[in-house]
Amino acid sequence: MAIITIVGAGMMGSAMSFPARDNGHEVRLVGTHLDREIINRVRKDGFHPKLQRSLPGGIKAFQIEELEGAIDGADLLIGGVSSFGVDWFIEKVLPLAHDRIPVLSVTKGLKDEPEGGLLTFPHFMKDKMSPDKDISFNAIGGPCTSYELADRRDSAVVFCGEDPAVLKDLKKMLTTSYYHISLSTDVVGVESAAALKNAYALGVSLAVGLIEREKGIECRQAYNPQAALFGQALREMGHMLRMLGGGSENIVYGGGDLYVTIFGGRTRKLGTLLGRGLSFHDAMAKLEGITLESVAITKRVAKAMYRRQELGQADMNDLPLLKHVYDIIENDVSVAIPWKAFEREYL
Amino acid sequence: MAIITIVGAGMMGSAMSFPARDNGHEVRLVGTHLDREIINRVRKDGFHPKLQRSLPGGIKAFQIEELEGAIDGADLLIGGVSSFGVDWFIEKVLPLAHDRIPVLSVTKGLKDEPEGGLLTFPHFMKDKMSPDKDISFNAIGGPCTSYELADRRDSAVVFCGEDPAVLKDLKKMLTTSYYHISLSTDVVGVESAAALKNAYALGVSLAVGLIEREKGIECRQAYNPQAALFGQALREMGHMLRMLGGGSENIVYGGGDLYVTIFGGRTRKLGTLLGRGLSFHDAMAKLEGITLESVAITKRVAKAMYRRQELGQADMNDLPLLKHVYDIIENDVSVAIPWKAFEREYL
Repeated sequence: MAIITIVGAGMMGSAMSFPARDNGHEVRLVGTHLDREIINRVRKDGFHPKLQRSLPGGIKAFQIEELEGAIDGADLLIGGVSSFGVDWFIEKVLPLAHDRIPVLSVTKGLKDEPEGGLLTFPHFMKDKMSPDKDISFNAIGGPCTSYELADRRDSAVVFCGEDPAVLKDLKKMLTTSYYHISLSTDVVGVESAAALKNAYALGVSLAVGLIEREKGIECRQAYNPQAALFGQALREMGHMLRMLGGGSENIVYGGGDLYVTIFGGRTRKLGTLLGRGLSFHDAMAKLEGITLESVAITKRVAKAMYRRQELGQADMNDLPLLKHVYDIIENDVSVAIPWKAFEREYL
Repeated sequence: MAIITIVGAGMMGSAMSFPARDNGHEVRLVGTHLDREIINRVRKDGFHPKLQRSLPGGIKAFQIEELEGAIDGADLLIGGVSSFGVDWFIEKVLPLAHDRIPVLSVTKGLKDEPEGGLLTFPHFMKDKMSPDKDISFNAIGGPCTSYELADRRDSAVVFCGEDPAVLKDLKKMLTTSYYHISLSTDVVGVESAAALKNAYALGVSLAVGLIEREKGIECRQAYNPQAALFGQALREMGHMLRMLGGGSENIVYGGGDLYVTIFGGRTRKLGTLLGRGLSFHDAMAKLEGITLESVAITKRVAKAMYRRQELGQADMNDLPLLKHVYDIIENDVSVAIPWKAFEREYL
């Protein structure tokens, strides 16, 4: 049995304790400074207040001040922070990791660079590490919401990284009867798909609010518009995956991931509010300022694509849905889906 | 303004009268022998009993005995039959069509051939026509349920055919503010995607019933399993599209189409019943023997793929979801999703 240290006790980081404990590993769950109350509660009775579920028995919970001891001797370090915590993770956590420990990150996002680049977090982390350290950076893509993983629902994910042997070890450590793990060395493809779907889940869920604006909240949904947006999302994601150098098979993970995100979480709430007619500002106020990966990734990707357009390497006319979602977020534009811009001619 | 004759007054054929009439065309709706009551009702007060909506004003409704007059002088013939009516359409309707009339078919399906071929209906129709007739066969793919088209919800479809000029004419005739038409000369790709999604919508909706079996009917759904099946469906559809020679961009239409079919119709009901634990036989009895495109296409495609496997041209291990759905339908096997067979290694 191995020792697995999870840093970040939010929903997804904590949910990783289920396959880890079910396989008999020692699990050390370390809260960040944002997770203090979570760790207090887990220590008290094992209940995770955000997941609203009891964590598996036998988990060792640590406050951030105890990080060093929690990492000491670990065989695997799971990065459980959100995209907003990546810099912190690099600065505070990675220096404590011993040489050759594999890192497996649940963080979904991309780092935008000045010249239109979009860097995956495994690559970003590697760039930031001192070159004398030998750490294998891996990450998880594919459709998997935290609370359903905690319910041990069948979930299909993909672990990506550069080293096939490490990936196989990670799979052996974490595969269970309900946690199904594919492997890929296409880090750019897996991670870009995992990040982009957050932007497009926002785009698709606009349709949920649009019909509610017309027919009333909680009305019977219409699926033709959602499906049209879903298809357009797949097209634009595929287009950007090719542009970034990711393999097209990743549209499989990205498509499933888009599907679950549309139905799963807070992004749907934001898209619905926008579709109903609220401005971005008012919608965010209603959601009480929660930070949304979908908003962050939309801004980053759109900025990168606009920069590429300036450099003659991209054309925003190929990305009309991204462009519109960005306009809603950044320029407080009202929702008006550019349907006709989605029409294509393959003649 | 043109004269558009729709043969087949079922839900989708009849729904095509909305964009047609909204563009001011003369619309002649001809019922098959199965549609007699529908036509009677439409003639009486314009209400379509299956769509449960009033058709647009000014439609001319015809019984099958009046077919010849209804086709006479038409500028466009829309084939509105289901896949079960294609032979009838070829035998009874096409001989009445004058030379050079374009046909636009809403029928979704593929014809399986002895040596593992899967023929699109436009190609099948062309093969069956006498060679001295010059008819352009075109078809509609993409996500569009009939009742939402009748509600004038934004719907994105793709018209496919061999002749770009004809496709552009068809688009001009039928494009409206809510009916968004892409064009493609990749008939194999568009039509295969449109057909395959029916099989896979059945596969994905098994998950809806599986959780109901455990937690009770109408329980809160789990989306990780659905999303895993959705991703696997995209993978297998993409695999077969490549095998059949269709372009990979069709996964965009196929993916949207899969999405709307999962939420839209009878296929979801069947998949849900099967997932709950009913045998195929019992589930079909409960659905009162309605004929389902999803069942027909699953059988046809699986048979073709098994034949290809015999010929060394395919491997059913690449299609584990299709294989399982076929086993449920054909061999009365209980639902047991082969999750581990979905795992892939791209190393």
